[in-house]
Amino acid sequence: MGQNLALNIVEKGFSISVYNRTTSKVDETVERAKVKENLPLFGFHHLEAFVRSIQKPCVIIMLVKAGAPVDQTIETLSQYLEKGDCIVDGGNEWYENTERREKAMAEKGLLYLGMGVSGGEEGAHNGPSLMPGGSFEAYKNIEDILLKLIAEAYDVLKFIGKLTNEELKNVFEEWNKGELLSFLIEITADIFGIKDDKGEGYLVDKVLDKTVMKGTGKWTVQQAADLSVVAPTIAASLDSRFLSGLKEERVQAANVFKEGGFGDILTDQPVDKEKLINDVRQALYASKICSYAQGMNLIRAKSIEKAWDLKLGELARIWKGGCIIRAIFLDRIKRAYDRNAELSNLLVDPEFATEIIERQSAWKRVVCLAINLGISTPGMSTSLAYFDTYRRERLPANLVQAQMDYFGAHTYERTDVSGSFHTEWFKIAKSKI
Amino acid sequence: MGQNLALNIVEKGFSISVYNRTTSKVDETVERAKVKENLPLFGFHHLEAFVRSIQKPCVIIMLVKAGAPVDQTIETLSQYLEKGDCIVDGGNEWYENTERREKAMAEKGLLYLGMGVSGGEEGAHNGPSLMPGGSFEAYKNIEDILLKLIAEAYDVLKFIGKLTNEELKNVFEEWNKGELLSFLIEITADIFGIKDDKGEGYLVDKVLDKTVMKGTGKWTVQQAADLSVVAPTIAASLDSRFLSGLKEERVQAANVFKEGGFGDILTDQPVDKEKLINDVRQALYASKICSYAQGMNLIRAKSIEKAWDLKLGELARIWKGGCIIRAIFLDRIKRAYDRNAELSNLLVDPEFATEIIERQSAWKRVVCLAINLGISTPGMSTSLAYFDTYRRERLPANLVQAQMDYFGAHTYERTDVSGSFHTEWFKIAKSKI
Repeated sequence: MGQNLALNIVEKGFSISVYNRTTSKVDETVERAKVKENLPLFGFHHLEAFVRSIQKPCVIIMLVKAGAPVDQTIETLSQYLEKGDCIVDGGNEWYENTERREKAMAEKGLLYLGMGVSGGEEGAHNGPSLMPGGSFEAYKNIEDILLKLIAEAYDVLKFIGKLTNEELKNVFEEWNKGELLSFLIEITADIFGIKDDKGEGYLVDKVLDKTVMKGTGKWTVQQAADLSVVAPTIAASLDSRFLSGLKEERVQAANVFKEGGFGDILTDQPVDKEKLINDVRQALYASKICSYAQGMNLIRAKSIEKAWDLKLGELARIWKGGCIIRAIFLDRIKRAYDRNAELSNLLVDPEFATEIIERQSAWKRVVCLAINLGISTPGMSTSLAYFDTYRRERLPANLVQAQMDYFGAHTYERTDVSGSFHTEWFKIAKSKI
Repeated sequence: MGQNLALNIVEKGFSISVYNRTTSKVDETVERAKVKENLPLFGFHHLEAFVRSIQKPCVIIMLVKAGAPVDQTIETLSQYLEKGDCIVDGGNEWYENTERREKAMAEKGLLYLGMGVSGGEEGAHNGPSLMPGGSFEAYKNIEDILLKLIAEAYDVLKFIGKLTNEELKNVFEEWNKGELLSFLIEITADIFGIKDDKGEGYLVDKVLDKTVMKGTGKWTVQQAADLSVVAPTIAASLDSRFLSGLKEERVQAANVFKEGGFGDILTDQPVDKEKLINDVRQALYASKICSYAQGMNLIRAKSIEKAWDLKLGELARIWKGGCIIRAIFLDRIKRAYDRNAELSNLLVDPEFATEIIERQSAWKRVVCLAINLGISTPGMSTSLAYFDTYRRERLPANLVQAQMDYFGAHTYERTDVSGSFHTEWFKIAKSKI
């Protein structure tokens, strides 16, 4: 990532100094710049020499792991910096850490900017998405949810639809021409086409189904709870990550339930592939609307809490530059907020509402088919439950209120009279007997 | 609650002083004690007089709202206390607050004990569950989840099964004789039998479906994320609370989607009531196992983090004393941990596993029926997804790993060879074209 970003900068006509603790990486970058018409890229094996080589006031972009490594790098760099110098953190850092560092640096007269660089190795070279000042975390989190939803689509098509990798590749390529057009769909199609270089078959089938933890999902779920924002699709994405990490437990559990009639592939009955593919596409799209609805509501709640005064439509426009979620979808979000800046939920925007209504049957079919065949689709089913709860005028919460008043004298409100009421449920119930 | 607890104590043969800022409550308690053979209960209108009346070292049980009111009460009381005196907090307080107060009090030579009192007004009088030292929050949280699941059962039976309140009362009374036997099921049956004293019909139908926020659910979800414990049923319960609070937004959304063919009652087709009731009972029981599985795993993770060395089976035994979740179910949990103290998840205990296998068809039927008719059952469906994910050896996380390696060079593991791998997906995919 750093190499590619450096090459990108130097190719644009700026001279640049590069440094890495692993000196071979420095040499490699220098070699790559040399090959390209001997561009003004200077490699350094020593940090101090690196900093001294930069024109004042110097600007240093660091790409290191979020958290403690960033603090360490700042500390090391600081000893060579002077007033007015600037450090840019190109990583995916939690905004509270960035705010803390901004303050600490400002006290020394130094500038500090959190500016996530995204777009992968390829994007870093050919057109990264640069997201200064916090918008990056929001973006990374939504990206994570979409990964999860696409994995469910893959799961249903592979295990229920019995699609081969070649067929999956074609499906995702087709999808990328329509409403689902996005970088994620595009790279997913690419992935299904790649053969294993270590043996037979396709590489994707050899990749271990065990994801690693990242902080972002955790923070998002905790923030949602703090701000009383309902974000079950985001939570489902985090849970899938946790559960996929429990590989050994899952293997044991699979063993326990094997005799109960469960197995990975529960169906040998023929499936109408075309219809299934079509249904899954619609379920994926409807679920995607739900994830964005939750994500945008979370951002708005945080913006209100922090008095950031974010414009949600404007945010969608900025994200559009991001390689990973560049999508016509973001235009729709922008349009929805342009129509109504105070929109309480993307779901009730007329355009999105129509799209959901059109897809509801397919969405339900996919979730129920998956449930019946024992393939869990927590992201899609929780999105559906979110939608079905949000659009219901009357929920069974009246019973919960009655129960809490029964055993905790919590009091309740009534549908017909205003005020707060308490009933001696126990006394009345037992007096009847 | 305070009145009833005071009466309970005095009836057991202990003399007691009572104080409340609302002096009428003090007088009321004194009256109630007088009616009962003039018991040694002394009411005070002034705090100092109240404290001075208590034998040294004095023990004061306070029942005030958790949070700031507890701190205020401690501060006010402290000015009259001496070394060795003790304050017991009978509220539902977050353990970190209790730990903080314990420390602060200890520095003054005072004792402090968090001991949640539960069982409602009735329980406080006739047999409260006293839970010293933190076990109370865990218990309150599990209780909250069960409320939510029972509300879903009610929703399905009412809107799909078209059961009247009288029929619902009978169903819950029946259920209380079997595997679902518990205080919650019992009081729910009571609730359905109570007529509205302000008009026609039943009281439960007049209660507003808008629940109030409590901190406990929020904390649990945040702790689960911190500890990497998957607890989607708990999260669904919190989300339902949030969504039921958005009554005005829901009314608007219902309006937007009314024309899309959605309505609260989507079916006029006849339903086999007996079968539905039987299915819902099984779905509820299976979901309950999932909630406890998640709750116990969360408690264990916290116990490990804090080096509390909790015995999970023992905890179930303590809870059994609690009025609200007193249930044969807790015996099963105790047995499961007696069989295997290191049980990774309640789901794989042989007894629970068998119970789930027996109920899986009914569970799936209820969730899919509800989905098809637009009645969301997020608690039951998320529990099912949890189970179906946990018992799967292979999840589609391989695709997510491949995607992350594609655009972020995150590297991946393989199923066949150990080690960490990175593939130039983009380069390979594009070189083919």
